[in-house]
This record gives sequence, C-alpha cells and structure tokens, in this order.
Amino acid sequence: MEKLKKFQIKFLPLEKVVEVSENIDILKAAIKARINLRNSCGGKGLCGKCKVRVISGKYKTRSTFNLKPQEIKQGYVLACQTYPLTDLVVEVLPQSLEVRPQIARAGLGVIGEDLLKEESPAERIYPLKPIIGVEHLRLKEPDLENNLPDVERIQLASGREFIIPLKILERLPYVLRESKWDVNLTWYIPRNYVLDISPASSKNGNFALACDLGTTTVVLHLLDLSGGKVINTKAEYNRQIMVAEDVISRIILAEEEGGLQELKVLALETINELIVKICEDTDISFREITAILIAGNTTMLHLVLGIPPDFIRRYPYTPVFKSELLVPAQEVGININPQGLVLTMPGIRSFVGSDIVAGILASGMDRADEVSLFVDLGTNGEVVLGNREWMISCSTSAGPCFEGGGLTSGVRAMAGAIQKITIVEDKLNFTTISGEKPIGICGTGIVELIAELFVNRVIDKSGNFIPGSSQRIRENEYGELEFVVVDKNESGSGSDIVITQSDVKNLIYSKAAIYLGIEVLLQKMGLDVQDVRNIYIAGGLGTYLDIEKSIIIGLFPDVDRGRFKFLGNTSIQGARLYLCSQSARQRAGEISDMVTNLELSNVPEFLNNYSSALFLPHTDIDKFPSVKEKLK
Amino acid sequence: MEKLKKFQIKFLPLEKVVEVSENIDILKAAIKARINLRNSCGGKGLCGKCKVRVISGKYKTRSTFNLKPQEIKQGYVLACQTYPLTDLVVEVLPQSLEVRPQIARAGLGVIGEDLLKEESPAERIYPLKPIIGVEHLRLKEPDLENNLPDVERIQLASGREFIIPLKILERLPYVLRESKWDVNLTWYIPRNYVLDISPASSKNGNFALACDLGTTTVVLHLLDLSGGKVINTKAEYNRQIMVAEDVISRIILAEEEGGLQELKVLALETINELIVKICEDTDISFREITAILIAGNTTMLHLVLGIPPDFIRRYPYTPVFKSELLVPAQEVGININPQGLVLTMPGIRSFVGSDIVAGILASGMDRADEVSLFVDLGTNGEVVLGNREWMISCSTSAGPCFEGGGLTSGVRAMAGAIQKITIVEDKLNFTTISGEKPIGICGTGIVELIAELFVNRVIDKSGNFIPGSSQRIRENEYGELEFVVVDKNESGSGSDIVITQSDVKNLIYSKAAIYLGIEVLLQKMGLDVQDVRNIYIAGGLGTYLDIEKSIIIGLFPDVDRGRFKFLGNTSIQGARLYLCSQSARQRAGEISDMVTNLELSNVPEFLNNYSSALFLPHTDIDKFPSVKEKLK
Ligand code: FES
Ligand code: FES
Repeated sequence: MEKLKKFQIKFLPLEKVVEVSENIDILKAAIKARINLRNSCGGKGLCGKCKVRVISGKYKTRSTFNLKPQEIKQGYVLACQTYPLTDLVVEVLPQSLEVRPQIARAGLGVIGEDLLKEESPAERIYPLKPIIGVEHLRLKEPDLENNLPDVERIQLASGREFIIPLKILERLPYVLRESKWDVNLTWYIPRNYVLDISPASSKNGNFALACDLGTTTVVLHLLDLSGGKVINTKAEYNRQIMVAEDVISRIILAEEEGGLQELKVLALETINELIVKICEDTDISFREITAILIAGNTTMLHLVLGIPPDFIRRYPYTPVFKSELLVPAQEVGININPQGLVLTMPGIRSFVGSDIVAGILASGMDRADEVSLFVDLGTNGEVVLGNREWMISCSTSAGPCFEGGGLTSGVRAMAGAIQKITIVEDKLNFTTISGEKPIGICGTGIVELIAELFVNRVIDKSGNFIPGSSQRIRENEYGELEFVVVDKNESGSGSDIVITQSDVKNLIYSKAAIYLGIEVLLQKMGLDVQDVRNIYIAGGLGTYLDIEKSIIIGLFPDVDRGRFKFLGNTSIQGARLYLCSQSARQRAGEISDMVTNLELSNVPEFLNNYSSALFLPHTDIDKFPSVKEKLK
Repeated sequence: MEKLKKFQIKFLPLEKVVEVSENIDILKAAIKARINLRNSCGGKGLCGKCKVRVISGKYKTRSTFNLKPQEIKQGYVLACQTYPLTDLVVEVLPQSLEVRPQIARAGLGVIGEDLLKEESPAERIYPLKPIIGVEHLRLKEPDLENNLPDVERIQLASGREFIIPLKILERLPYVLRESKWDVNLTWYIPRNYVLDISPASSKNGNFALACDLGTTTVVLHLLDLSGGKVINTKAEYNRQIMVAEDVISRIILAEEEGGLQELKVLALETINELIVKICEDTDISFREITAILIAGNTTMLHLVLGIPPDFIRRYPYTPVFKSELLVPAQEVGININPQGLVLTMPGIRSFVGSDIVAGILASGMDRADEVSLFVDLGTNGEVVLGNREWMISCSTSAGPCFEGGGLTSGVRAMAGAIQKITIVEDKLNFTTISGEKPIGICGTGIVELIAELFVNRVIDKSGNFIPGSSQRIRENEYGELEFVVVDKNESGSGSDIVITQSDVKNLIYSKAAIYLGIEVLLQKMGLDVQDVRNIYIAGGLGTYLDIEKSIIIGLFPDVDRGRFKFLGNTSIQGARLYLCSQSARQRAGEISDMVTNLELSNVPEFLNNYSSALFLPHTDIDKFPSVKEKLK
C-alpha cells in the first residue's frame, strides 16, 4: 500500500495549523482544527456554506457549485470539495463561520419554561408501572437454624433472582446489619439488576432521569417514578456544539484521534452539569437517582457512550446498535448513583434514532387503526407513516434551517429570535421570543418570512427575488441579493438581520426534502395524503409553527388543518413513558423492530421528484388547492 | 457509648508496635502488626500455640489452658485470651512464629507434578458442553436493503439476544469490517454474556481457567474447552499466608483498615503470577482466556472479590453470598482477557464452601442411590453425607494438622516432607517427598507417626508419652516431652524434626473433630456407618494417606477398606466439570441449594461426644474392632 502524503493547512485569520493526509478535504481539516466552518449540507457540495479562499498552495477541487466564475478565479473553493496537493494557506470568511459562543452563554430560557411541560397523547394509555422498582424488605434476622447468606436471604424474601453488582456486595453485609435487616431494594425490573440496597429508614425515593440528548439541546426531566410525576426539568445547549455543529461534523471529528473521547466528554459534561442543577433545585441527592434513560438520535447515543459512529455516515449507513443498552453509570461517567444504570432507548437506524421511537410512542400512532404521519423537523427531518400494523420511516436530510441553523441570520428558538412575521405593503411586523430586541430569525420565523415574501410577491415561485418588488431588497458585499428584515440600528445584535437569495434557496431545499419524504412514503404504501388521519409535528419549534404558512411554502401537504397536531418535544415525552411504564418500554422495543426504514438514496422517485418540489409551493400547484386559491 | 481505651503493644524481638483498643486481644494485635503468631485453634484458647510472654504492662487473661503454673508466674499467656489494661511489651517466642518464607520460595513441585492430573469419578458422567461457547459467524455484509445495526446483525445470525459489554461495542464496528464480517463470538452461555468478538482468521481458541483458591495453595488449570482437555497446570502457595496463616486470622485482618484490600491484592498477585507462568508455558495469550472459574472456601471467595468476610466468623456465621457471581475480570483485577469474566462456583455456607460443592460434584455422590460420605481433610475438615435425594454437611474445625500446619515440625506436602514412617523396635524408617533430605513432617506423615507411636506403645491411648518406651523421647527446653524423628545433623533444615506432647494432643483434637463430624451426621440421619457405601477422601494429602493407620488413630471409622476412595484435589476437579459441562454447572447449583448444613455449635451431641473421641482410637474400642484385634 502506498503511503498517503501529508500536508499542512494553515487557516487565516485564526492562524490555526493542522496536518492532514491528501485524501482529507479542507472542511474536515477545518473541523480537525476546531474551526466551526458552516456545512449545512453535510459536506455534499450543495449548500455553498463552506466557501473558503485558498491564498497559497496547490489543490484539486471536485465541484464549484454555487460559486461565481470570478470567485473561482480568486481562489474561492467549496472546502468540502477541495483536497490539498501541497501545503496550503486558507482564508476563512467571517460569514462561513458558525458563531456560537453567545448561544452557549444565552441558555435556554424559553424552552426551559414553556415547552417542557407538554403531555403526550399516549400519556394516559400506558399504566404507571415503572421499570425501576423499589421493594421494602423486612428480612428475617439470621440464626443458626437459618443462616442463609445475605444475597440468598434477599432473593428468598423477594422471590427474585437478582444480579447484584460487586460494589453493592462490598457494602451489603454492613447495610443489612446496620439497618437491622430492614432495607429498600431498588432494581431495574426488566433485567432484575440491583441498583441500590439501603436502610429502609433512609427513606430514599425512586428517582430517575429522562434525557433527550439532542444534537443541539439536551433536556433532562427528573421523575419521581413512584407517582410518575416530573419533579424538575432542565435544558441546556449540547456542549458538543463548541467543537462541531451537526451530526456529520461530529462523526468526522470522532474519527480523528482523540475526537470521540472529546465529544463523549462534552456530552457528559453537559448532562452532568444539568444533573447538578436539578439536584440543587430539588434538594435530591444524586445518589437517589438510580437510572438515566437517554433518547436521542443514533449518533448522539453512540457518542455519549464512546461507541464509534464512523459507519453511520458511510454507505450503507449501519450503526453499531439500536436496541436498549444498559451500562453502569460509573462506567459511562454520568454522575447519578454510582451503582446506577445508563439505559439507551431503542432506535431504528442510523438516521432514524430513538428520539423517533420516543416520538412514535408519545404520539400513540402505533396503537391507532387509522394511518398517521409523524414529522420531526430536526436536521434529519424524519418522517414516519403508519398505524398499529405497519410503519415506515425515512430521514430526509432537511438540514438545520428549521432549527435556525445554516442561514445568514438564523438563530435557534431563543430569547430575541423572530418567530412571527407579517408583511403588508412592504411594511414588516414581527414578534420575538420573550419580546426582546431581535437578534435573528428562528425556524418558525423563517417559514413565516418565506411565506410572506411569496404571498407578497417579493420572491417568485422559484424563490428568486423579484427586482423592484420591495425597498428592502439590496445587493450585499458578495454581490448577492438579500432582503433586510431588521436594520442593525434596531437589532439586538448590532448587525442587520437579513435573508439572502441562497438562504431562500436553502429553505426551499429543506422544505422540499420534508415534503418529498412524506410523498415517497405515501407512494410506497400506495396511499393518498387524504388517507392520513393525523399529522403529528414534533420538534422544539413545532409548537409555534404556523400551519397555514407552512402549507403556503409547500412544507406540508394541503389537507384539512384539523389533522395537524403539534406535539412539541416528543423525544423527552417518549423517554418519560419508557421509564414510567413497563408496557411502554416493551412497546418501544416492538416499535424499534417494527418500523421499516427506507433509505431515500435507494429510492429513485425521491431524486426524480426533487426538482419538482423546489418550487413554492410545488411545480404542480394543483397539489395545493388552497394555496392556488389564495394566490389568485 | 463510652469510648474504648487505646493501648500500645510492642512486640519483641521484632520491635513492632501497634495501637489497639482494650477489647482487642494480643493475637489480633499481633496479626495487625503482621506477626505470624501460630493459632491452630483459631483463637479459641485450645491449642496453646499462641503462647507469648508479657514483659511489662498490665493485662487480663481469660484462660491459661495448657500453660504450666511456673509459666504463668513468668508472664506467659495465651495471646488469644489476653487483653491489655495498659500499654504492653510482649515477647514472641520463636516457636510461636509460623515460619513461612522458605515455603513461599520452595514452590509446589510435587503437587504440580503428581496430584493435578487425577480424573474424578464424575468426569465421564457429564457430557462435554462447555459453559463458554465460541460461535463462528459469517455475517451477511450490510447493504441498503439490509442495514441492520452491527449488534442486531449478530443477534439475528446467532438467534440469541446477547448482553455485549461497552468495551466490546467500542471495537465492534472495526472488528466486523476488518474481518470482512467473518468473526468468532465467545460468550458465557448461561447468561448470554459476550466475552469476545474477534476476526475468525485470528483463530483464537476457547480457553478458560479453573482455579482452586485454597487457603494455603492456589491451583490453576488451563482448559481447552473445545476438547475439554487440561492444557497446563500450575500451583503456588497463596501469598496471603505471608500476612495471615489461616481463614480466621485473615478475616480478623480483613476487618482492620486496609486489611481486606491487602488480602485481595495478595490473592490476585498469586493468581496473576500463575497466569503469567501458564501463558509462558503454553504460548497462549492471556487475551485468549475469556473466563476463570474460582472454587474455594467461602472466605477465600469473599477475599479475592473484596467482599467483607466479617460475618463469616461471627454468630450465626452468614456469608454475603454463596451462589455463582459473575464479575468482569477487569473489575476484579485478574489478568485474563480484559472483557473476560470471573465466575465463582456456588458454595453452601460460611465454612462449607464451593470447594465442597466441587468435591460433591466430582465424587458423583449426588447422583448415586447409595449413601456416601465425603471428607475433606482441610483446616475446616468438612464432612458431607448423602445421596441423590438428600445431603447433609458440617464443618469440624479440625485445624491445620492434616495440612502440616500447627505442629512444631509440621510442613506442607512439599519436597523433603516426611510422608511415610514405620517404627520397628525403636528403629524409625521414613521416606520423604521427592526423596530429598527431610525438612519436616507433612499431614500424611503425622498420621503415620502417631499410629506407629501408638502401635509401638510409645504413646498411650490418651496420647501421652510413655516414659522409657523409646530412646527418642526427651524433655525440651520448655520442659515438654518430645519424640525426635530426625536429628538436626541429618535433617535438611538444620533443626531437629520432633513431635511434642502437645503436637500429639493437637492431632488427637483434629482427628476427633473429623470422626465426630462423621458420627454426628450419621446420627442425625439415623444411619449406621455400615450403611455408607463409599467414603470419599479429598484434599491435597488424600492420595498418600495410609488408610490402615488412619483407622488405627481413629480418624476414620473402622469399616471395609474397599469403601475408601482417595480423590485428591476435588475442588479443581469439580471446577473443571463446571466449566466443561452446562449440566455439571446446573448440578452444582442444585447441590448448593440441596445440601443442609449443620452448624456443629448447634448440636449438643457433638460437644458431648468430644471427650470420648479424644482417645486413640476412641474410648469405646469396640467401635474399632480391627484395631482392637491389632492391639491384642
Ligand atoms: S457545500 Fe460544502 S458543506 Fe455544503
Ligand atoms: S490457644 Fe491461642 S490460638 Fe490457640
């Protein structure tokens, strides 16, 4: 085997230098150098966000999509499509950088307050029968006639054959005798795995954590399993954002030496800090928490356990695991009771994870006779179609638009994010989250903005700005048209809040991906959209999304509005059900095995139909009769 | 609660000082100071071995059994019966010290060569069906139609739901792909617990270790489970001897701060060094060994896992566990495959451990219609009576005589140990193990010596030396009668090899304990000794024991010699069966639950009959008709 050549790449103006092999593209090199280069399309050469300029050195480039001839002449390249042939010096443009420090500082006020209390449709279906049990055992004190060993004494009293970890055995004889043979035994019921044995007098509760480990946001719910109640909730940005923005960048980083460990530690730090806050808030000791159930996309579950995610992003996209894992908390490094357990919620495939199983479970669509659709508007844009008898899923790679990512002025759903917009005669009205000064546009705001621009004929059905249609249109310093939403004098960030021509195109790519995901699943099952009884929308943005405007841009099919149900964060809802009900846990396992996942790259219809969906709302306007009516 | 007073105790001539509470006896203080004070009776004030002299300070003493009035006047005390009232200075007599360094150096040549190859009666009963399985899996390479996760792919191919530890998942995706989806999976079958997944091309074998973790000796057998063959055997003294001689001393030491950890580490060092030797000998890598099954007495199993044995020696003698534990080897600290398992063989009670379950299993007595007796001549002197339908056991606290411990010139069965003795007209003939110069008398030699002294009327039936009966009787420097076996000029150790009056008494205590154990079990079941079809004798010394002479001294009942069967080290034999046969493993679990253990301290007959057994062979000579005949 020939050895790969190595080259040094220096990034300006940050002066960061990395050494990489000739087969590593500049995007990966930047990630290795911990530079948050934008890459909305995940390095596929489609979004143009990773544009950089090579100042010196030789390179080869596979695609110049979206670059102007003049830019190409000046050395501009798509980082994800460009490989070094010599050492390089590369200039990173400010607009190509994801700027995240302020987010990490900002915290998650809104999500923390509003979205975390939702009940899911399935909440009342499953009986409260937690998967962690606490049994009060009054043991018979041993005597010469009955000097069974401690372990066997417990098993006899409880009628179960337990697995008791060594660390608990090390203390067991003292606990039994100091408590005068009166103890509470806490165990993970499905596997008879003992989590704690402590004196009955210490009156420990039965607490467990449900965790939604999102790419962007980590949400923790502390549950009192004895009553199935949420005691406390906390949410925070996932610290992994600081080193890599999205799932694909994180997988690439995990493949670097030490990268997986770094990402694991960042996820653990995020979770552990939330646990500290929850314990401070509630006066519950971390020792009283004997389990944490983690739901999240497949990559996140791999990362937090330190299991290599490499093959998730490689053909044919096989993760290492999808079913429930159980690992001692101490082995993982999560600071609950040291003898406690980390459980993972079962998922489906590489890009349809346990957050989607949780969502299906929470929606209850898996128990209905009628057919439902479930849409999660995250980066992957997962879509599930089905009922109690069958289910089919796909992941659409919608990109981060709906989470406020990948856009010039996009922000997440945080204080100051513009979420509602109307335009009447070139006059723009908006409201922000928490009513603060605007700092950017979040996912729901973007959908409203595009719909308003379209209805007001500021953009045409291809998404192109119509010259002269608005005073707010201007050409920016890169020669691109953009629409000014808020002037820098009025913004909370000190910069203009704008939407550029390519932002519009990006959003159209995203909405088209979701729409086509829905359409392909329906086609596959020979169903019409009218056959679908419920359309469940999940995701942090879901609750605020304007359904009318979503249909105007062609994100969702044009059906009876009453069929749409916004569920909020179904990942945490499903995780709660899993902890609180043994039958919900069992059902989650069945869902995990029952859902057929369609790899869209394997579906020619998807690619064929793609271009026809790249219009507002669609090439075939007859698919959107109510929009057609409105545009008359 | 009043605080206990603390006193300093200084031991001469070793100049070791310890601080202890007023409720700690001098024996425990010595153990705490790491002084190997003899204590054959386990601190019960019976053996007189722990005699020390208090040079200054005040004390109270509970018993002066075996001390002469003159000694008492000089400050001699039984350390185990004496408590400080002030700081003390204590002189340790050379003969009260267990001298072990030469043993640790000597190694275990003989046992290694001869005793380890025995087959047990049950060897052919149980089909070869190892508890560790290796399955060759040729997995289907994933494609877009079938991109099941790695774990699910394996489970589907094997048809089993495995528990796969995190450390294996961390490497799994690479192993599968580098091996081109052609792997061997090694797992612990009874719990579907995966121990290793490696490329099929690496051709790892299916190796496991059987370990007899004895108080004195640790024996390891490396098994190739695929053929059920022993590949290599190694044995060594248990390094715990260096800090505490017997089970009771070790429990006492374990209760001291850091003591349990120290004992654990010493056991692990012993085992790990043997593993290194086995690997060197066989060229098998420690990574290829995926399990170690440990059989041993209950205390040893607690110590090696770091589980507190405190309550084993306290009324009502309850251990922490008796059933099979399974602990990751890395968590225990045993150097086999890091993802391998440590398994403990199930035992019965505090003083009837898994070595006895192994012995029952190996003897096959649990499958026979006829009633058998099983006798293990170790320190506890365990006795089991029963058949396929019922079994009853007891532990007799016989003391270490039969292992060469607790006697002035006692040594273990090692090169130079006198093992056969005849006396004809005051002429003494002996043979030593390996034919080397004599260094002491091992257990079998002691039995022969006492029988010969008795038959030659050098001692009477109470065990007292008969004055003038032999030229070899003399008074030693402590004023005690002793019989010189070998003069120091002819010995390999440079010292006289002798047996003292109290050595004889000690042996009589020991043989009486065993004999009474047998008698009590028979009485309990309403059986006569003639109803017993087989008498299985186990223990390292067993193979060489002269049955005729054992009956002469009243160790065993006087029945047809053909009923005695010497089985050797049944602990390791049973451990091998357990590893090689799933049905043997299951049977061991059943035996563990089926045997009723009798605590002799709960049986008045035992204590009542004790004094009548303290004769050679017995007060009631009619119980020993063949001996009666011989003595005529
Ligand atoms: S074009 Fe390079 S990341 Fe999208
Ligand atoms: S008399 Fe003290 S240990 Fe035996």
